[in-house]
Amino acid sequence: MNFKIGGVTERMPIPVIKAFGILKRAAAEVNQDYGLDPKIASAIMKAADEVAEGKLNDHFPLVVWQTGSGTQTNMNVNEVISNRAIEMLGGELGSKKPVHPNDHVNKSQSSNDTFPTAMHIAAAVEVHEVLLPGLQKLHDALEAKSRDFAQIIKIGRTHTQDAVPLTLGQEFSGYVQQLKYAMTRIKAAMPRIYELAAGGTAVGTGLNTRIGFAEKVAAKVAALTGLPFVTAPNKFEALAAHDALVELSGAMNTTACSLMKIANDIRFLGSGPRSGLGELILPENEPGSSIMPGKVNPTQCEAMTMVAAQVMGNHVAVTVGGSNGHFELNVFKPMMIKNVLHSARLLGDAAVSFTENCVVGIQANKDRIAKLMNESLMLVTALNPHIGYDKAAKIAKTAHKNGSTLKATAIELGYLTAEQFDEWVKPKDMLGPK
Amino acid sequence: MNFKIGGVTERMPIPVIKAFGILKRAAAEVNQDYGLDPKIASAIMKAADEVAEGKLNDHFPLVVWQTGSGTQTNMNVNEVISNRAIEMLGGELGSKKPVHPNDHVNKSQSSNDTFPTAMHIAAAVEVHEVLLPGLQKLHDALEAKSRDFAQIIKIGRTHTQDAVPLTLGQEFSGYVQQLKYAMTRIKAAMPRIYELAAGGTAVGTGLNTRIGFAEKVAAKVAALTGLPFVTAPNKFEALAAHDALVELSGAMNTTACSLMKIANDIRFLGSGPRSGLGELILPENEPGSSIMPGKVNPTQCEAMTMVAAQVMGNHVAVTVGGSNGHFELNVFKPMMIKNVLHSARLLGDAAVSFTENCVVGIQANKDRIAKLMNESLMLVTALNPHIGYDKAAKIAKTAHKNGSTLKATAIELGYLTAEQFDEWVKPKDMLGPK
Amino acid sequence: MNFKIGGVTERMPIPVIKAFGILKRAAAEVNQDYGLDPKIASAIMKAADEVAEGKLNDHFPLVVWQTGSGTQTNMNVNEVISNRAIEMLGGELGSKKPVHPNDHVNKSQSSNDTFPTAMHIAAAVEVHEVLLPGLQKLHDALEAKSRDFAQIIKIGRTHTQDAVPLTLGQEFSGYVQQLKYAMTRIKAAMPRIYELAAGGTAVGTGLNTRIGFAEKVAAKVAALTGLPFVTAPNKFEALAAHDALVELSGAMNTTACSLMKIANDIRFLGSGPRSGLGELILPENEPGSSIMPGKVNPTQCEAMTMVAAQVMGNHVAVTVGGSNGHFELNVFKPMMIKNVLHSARLLGDAAVSFTENCVVGIQANKDRIAKLMNESLMLVTALNPHIGYDKAAKIAKTAHKNGSTLKATAIELGYLTAEQFDEWVKPKDMLGPK
Amino acid sequence: MNFKIGGVTERMPIPVIKAFGILKRAAAEVNQDYGLDPKIASAIMKAADEVAEGKLNDHFPLVVWQTGSGTQTNMNVNEVISNRAIEMLGGELGSKKPVHPNDHVNKSQSSNDTFPTAMHIAAAVEVHEVLLPGLQKLHDALEAKSRDFAQIIKIGRTHTQDAVPLTLGQEFSGYVQQLKYAMTRIKAAMPRIYELAAGGTAVGTGLNTRIGFAEKVAAKVAALTGLPFVTAPNKFEALAAHDALVELSGAMNTTACSLMKIANDIRFLGSGPRSGLGELILPENEPGSSIMPGKVNPTQCEAMTMVAAQVMGNHVAVTVGGSNGHFELNVFKPMMIKNVLHSARLLGDAAVSFTENCVVGIQANKDRIAKLMNESLMLVTALNPHIGYDKAAKIAKTAHKNGSTLKATAIELGYLTAEQFDEWVKPKDMLGPK
Repeated sequence: MNFKIGGVTERMPIPVIKAFGILKRAAAEVNQDYGLDPKIASAIMKAADEVAEGKLNDHFPLVVWQTGSGTQTNMNVNEVISNRAIEMLGGELGSKKPVHPNDHVNKSQSSNDTFPTAMHIAAAVEVHEVLLPGLQKLHDALEAKSRDFAQIIKIGRTHTQDAVPLTLGQEFSGYVQQLKYAMTRIKAAMPRIYELAAGGTAVGTGLNTRIGFAEKVAAKVAALTGLPFVTAPNKFEALAAHDALVELSGAMNTTACSLMKIANDIRFLGSGPRSGLGELILPENEPGSSIMPGKVNPTQCEAMTMVAAQVMGNHVAVTVGGSNGHFELNVFKPMMIKNVLHSARLLGDAAVSFTENCVVGIQANKDRIAKLMNESLMLVTALNPHIGYDKAAKIAKTAHKNGSTLKATAIELGYLTAEQFDEWVKPKDMLGPK
Repeated sequence: MNFKIGGVTERMPIPVIKAFGILKRAAAEVNQDYGLDPKIASAIMKAADEVAEGKLNDHFPLVVWQTGSGTQTNMNVNEVISNRAIEMLGGELGSKKPVHPNDHVNKSQSSNDTFPTAMHIAAAVEVHEVLLPGLQKLHDALEAKSRDFAQIIKIGRTHTQDAVPLTLGQEFSGYVQQLKYAMTRIKAAMPRIYELAAGGTAVGTGLNTRIGFAEKVAAKVAALTGLPFVTAPNKFEALAAHDALVELSGAMNTTACSLMKIANDIRFLGSGPRSGLGELILPENEPGSSIMPGKVNPTQCEAMTMVAAQVMGNHVAVTVGGSNGHFELNVFKPMMIKNVLHSARLLGDAAVSFTENCVVGIQANKDRIAKLMNESLMLVTALNPHIGYDKAAKIAKTAHKNGSTLKATAIELGYLTAEQFDEWVKPKDMLGPK
Repeated sequence: MNFKIGGVTERMPIPVIKAFGILKRAAAEVNQDYGLDPKIASAIMKAADEVAEGKLNDHFPLVVWQTGSGTQTNMNVNEVISNRAIEMLGGELGSKKPVHPNDHVNKSQSSNDTFPTAMHIAAAVEVHEVLLPGLQKLHDALEAKSRDFAQIIKIGRTHTQDAVPLTLGQEFSGYVQQLKYAMTRIKAAMPRIYELAAGGTAVGTGLNTRIGFAEKVAAKVAALTGLPFVTAPNKFEALAAHDALVELSGAMNTTACSLMKIANDIRFLGSGPRSGLGELILPENEPGSSIMPGKVNPTQCEAMTMVAAQVMGNHVAVTVGGSNGHFELNVFKPMMIKNVLHSARLLGDAAVSFTENCVVGIQANKDRIAKLMNESLMLVTALNPHIGYDKAAKIAKTAHKNGSTLKATAIELGYLTAEQFDEWVKPKDMLGPK
Repeated sequence: MNFKIGGVTERMPIPVIKAFGILKRAAAEVNQDYGLDPKIASAIMKAADEVAEGKLNDHFPLVVWQTGSGTQTNMNVNEVISNRAIEMLGGELGSKKPVHPNDHVNKSQSSNDTFPTAMHIAAAVEVHEVLLPGLQKLHDALEAKSRDFAQIIKIGRTHTQDAVPLTLGQEFSGYVQQLKYAMTRIKAAMPRIYELAAGGTAVGTGLNTRIGFAEKVAAKVAALTGLPFVTAPNKFEALAAHDALVELSGAMNTTACSLMKIANDIRFLGSGPRSGLGELILPENEPGSSIMPGKVNPTQCEAMTMVAAQVMGNHVAVTVGGSNGHFELNVFKPMMIKNVLHSARLLGDAAVSFTENCVVGIQANKDRIAKLMNESLMLVTALNPHIGYDKAAKIAKTAHKNGSTLKATAIELGYLTAEQFDEWVKPKDMLGPK
């Protein structure tokens, strides 16, 4: 091999191999419709099914750092399938008879349209099997927490500084919304991913394929996967640009921002046990330190934020690759799909891990929350409509300087009575508009 | 001022200032509904209109490198409007009477909800006034070229190497599709941009505002702008996260990839005049070199690709900012909106410049295109179905080695007759499936 | 103009214009040595000096989104200088006589070598005048604080959780080291920046210039600026690649990471006033909120972290531009230098602002620090060498569960006596190895 | 395990595991100096050596998406070593006797200082064993080509357009310079990488370790690796920030830009066989297309440019991680080192692959080069000093319009004689200054 780059961890991702199995199976079916010997077609289909099921994974040793079109992987697939089909038919391995890798398995196809087709199938399957379920699971767990915490009034923080109160449920509802929109964004990117290049062959014209082949293959792939694949309306774009992957990567990049924010909040809100904010109690999953006994660390938050950083980096790699296509072919294909699949898998898996090992076990430290809230100077905001901004500010500043309470200060300054304070400053009345 | 960072080019973008004008006008209207003195409300509205129209731009000297909430700009706006309103009402500037910047102009608002509201208004307006029209214009010009070039058969290029033919119109149709989808992607991001934070006040609860204020302000802003703004369904998310801006930036990042690809293709296809590919003749807009007379450079492509690189960089800045919000407030607001507006403006303007000064004037160099196409070895692909892959490859390799034509070589090798060659190898028959 | 992209904020940065003044002055001197009419040379020098001094800034309206070689700006400079020289000599503006913009001002030069020369001069000057002084100032202020805080023992935090103690001075010493290395890194990138392309002319060969011109111009520029510029050892690299700018941008990117970390720490350590960590008291520079009176926000930290995010984004733009040069010329020059100068200016200015308006005024909240430290469970680590890891962990966990002190728990568990605890657990003995 | 994220390809990189072996061996030696039972120390050393040699790789199944401090991997190492040492000493596996993972293997250490120490060791070793040798090899091959091609005069290209001539050797000399500086840049980043955190223990103070431990461990590691490791002068920085890795990643990012440029040039210069630039003949390593016989693709350039894009993406991930440390610990450690090692390995391997399978086999297509050069219009530049810029431009433009030669046009326009043309326009005289 001419590409000794990076070793075994750099192999073409298995979802791409499986997607090729689906595609080759679909193509064989359609080729049979167009006249391919049913015996050959049938053997190809069976062999392709095995590829799709992951049974032949060991036969795909190629790394992603190969031809930028993925040609070698397409050839690898053609050969593995032809040999397996030959084997099934009792032929001699490597003889190319009766099943020829190019003339039969690759019939009506080119690397240039099969690889991007496999990219889209792999991305769509991974989004549906790993990414979206993971995000949904996290969404649901956060939503449950938001409901559970609906009555817990706590201090808000803006600029990392004390601010007016909200409920812990409201705070979590922001996270729920972020997750909900994360899924919306990813789904919004899928229509372009569902478009398949198959039928474009070498440059997008469809040379050496048959009228109708493109549409039929897409329909077969749709049937095999249960996902709404269609043939790409413009095959030139489908081969030469991979904007659809940049777009999907962008949706995952936005998701990474959301998850970074949420995981950061949770670790800071759970910081302590005694010198942090301490409003949340996070599950103790493992001993946190080899030197500091009793220390429990927000390790799931850390895994999640590391994943988020990786996804942001992957997105730049995808962007650079996506911007550098030339003429009729983008030749950053293997790198692009590797990063897209990496991001999808990491986000999906991390969402599940974060949910199961952190979110579902989060408890509110109610005593701590109540203590911080009641000591807060920012409740003074409730006085604005009654005594005006300037007097309210004076109270807050004076109490801050003296280390005293708002109530005592307000009375001392002669701005209001104790009764007025109690009537006007009610945290539970500060949780919404009037 | 405590923020001497970067100088005049770093001022808060004018679209944000104008958006604040729209918002403050809308808020004054709604506040009047809720009881604000009509005389004061009316003066605020008039003053805010002037801000929205850009008449008071000089009064906003603050740079974006300030508080991460944009508080200083909100206060700046409140003061400019209150002073202008006071002036209209014959009062004394700076007296805060009869129009108080906080109590009246900022009524039922906070920096924390007004600034993100202004961000969304500004982004939406810029997208609709600059970005989408620019992309549409470029799309239309490319589509016209694609039609004009529909009959020009040329050699394809994959891996930057010679490949099978397509028409120049087909090649451009790929670009048209990229632009079409660029607009689709940007529009797909807009629903989250149309959501306004107004009504969330300080932490998202809506404290110190009125029930209905949020919905009414959004409706007024929608009426004033003609864009379908609505109140954000979750104000906690709307203040603490700016995923919607990361998402929009991501759509522009994908657009940048598309434009980089197209501009790169056009400059390479137009390279020459004698030692390049030479298939396109680009308009001569300016003398290209101070030392090489007669040289004409693809300067519009260069401006476009520089813009694309900038947009990719801006996207990372937006991503980093978007991922670093804490608790109830993201404090990268001014930086984020600056970059989003920068990208929108650059892409929109560059698309117009590229269209007017390059695309509409592109001519096909038909002689050159025909010459290259006829000399190509890749027409051999047409022989695959007739003589098989291996023999076709042999012909191509032999002709390449000998510098001879495919036809002569094919005959010499005894694989076919001259008549067969002429019948089987017809470029115009190689432009689609059969 | 063919480039209506982005408006006035997008003009070629003034440091580039000034650098061109320096270069053109140096070139005129050298050209005089090689025979240029002294009267003409002298007039060019005077005019160029005015450009270098910024007196003619208004004559450079071109935006960066132009030719990727900066040709238009070089021509702009040539014309402004020739016209100003003509004016000085009493000639007719625009007549190109007696001072011709190409034949005289641009003599022995090309846009392709002058623009990168101006890029390097501008970057070096900005680094020395703005960036390094800003970082040095911040370094010194942090170092002073580190000394001031040398005796204040506080709780450490790892994983955002309570950890073993250190002094506040030690904590700040880490920041000092980061700043020290930031300067080391930037200086380490300068040798390649000091290399000037001048003398390479159009493609790097030096065609139409004179042997020795390159070296002499570099020496003149060095003399004029006081910086150790030399002629680039390989002009082909100097025109076709701008790795040196990517490298410098990378050093600033690392600096941005350092500053983001420091500013984040300071705002979290200063969070409160009552519900945060509260260990630092930050200067109150401006009222923080339009709705929450008495609130003081870490606005300088916010400006700094926004700047850091911008620099990271700029770095990606520079990277994309730097990777996309073709053949003898990189045509992302104006974009690249714009971003490099932007980053240098923002970092330098922000460092000064952050120093003056935040760091120098930081006070330690000694009472709060002492309270948190004494309550900490992590002091238990001091018991490891005495009673072993497992018993120490048991003490910490039990105290945590019961909300009791380490000392009481340790005694209750029968692991040690009160005397032993007091002897073994001394925070001031936990600040270093033994 | 609580971190089911990403599967086997996401395991902690082997170079980190090996580095831990080196560190634990060094620490055991030093601990023996400080009194650790020599029998235990000796067993630890032997077991650690096996880890360093990669013999126990299978015992490290943990993925990088774990605790951000790498604590689990440190514990994994401690346990593997203690168990192997116990085995060697005839003890019972898992009994922690006589070799305790914490009390003995981890003695005087913490995850917080061992993991960053292992990061630096792994990065330095990979840089020296993989990255620098790969770059040196590519440098040398390019330099040899530059010498071989020293006499081949060819057309230059700026703005992708025809320009004045240079030699192919000069063109390649630019690449050589880029590679030379790539190594300079990487080496310039190493001094900070050679600084080891060991001795800082949990928060940088060195609690629970011994005076001199840090220096001695660094010296041992230096002796074991042959690399100039020293103890970090400030352990707070060494734990809380990983600027050194961001810096090294930045140097690799610059290298990626260089390699992207070089590989792009080579594929375009080698484009064809008949419709491209065709100046270089690249080695034919594999059949290029499954549908287009005879097609040879620049696959090594494609692998290289994909690697470059990946490195740029990895750099952003490292940057995001590096900027997000908090207080006494950065918790993006595993992610950061994974990306740094990934980049180093990919660049080093790709440089070797590119050298062996592409660069050494590159041939100049002399006929094609000569043909393009002689037809060029840009030779007109040689006339500038003789007939002035404007007339030279007129000749070039006229010849371009008429498709005629410069010589014929120049004579026809009456600007000079045939003899003058031949004397003035000599490409070999256009390769340098006079």
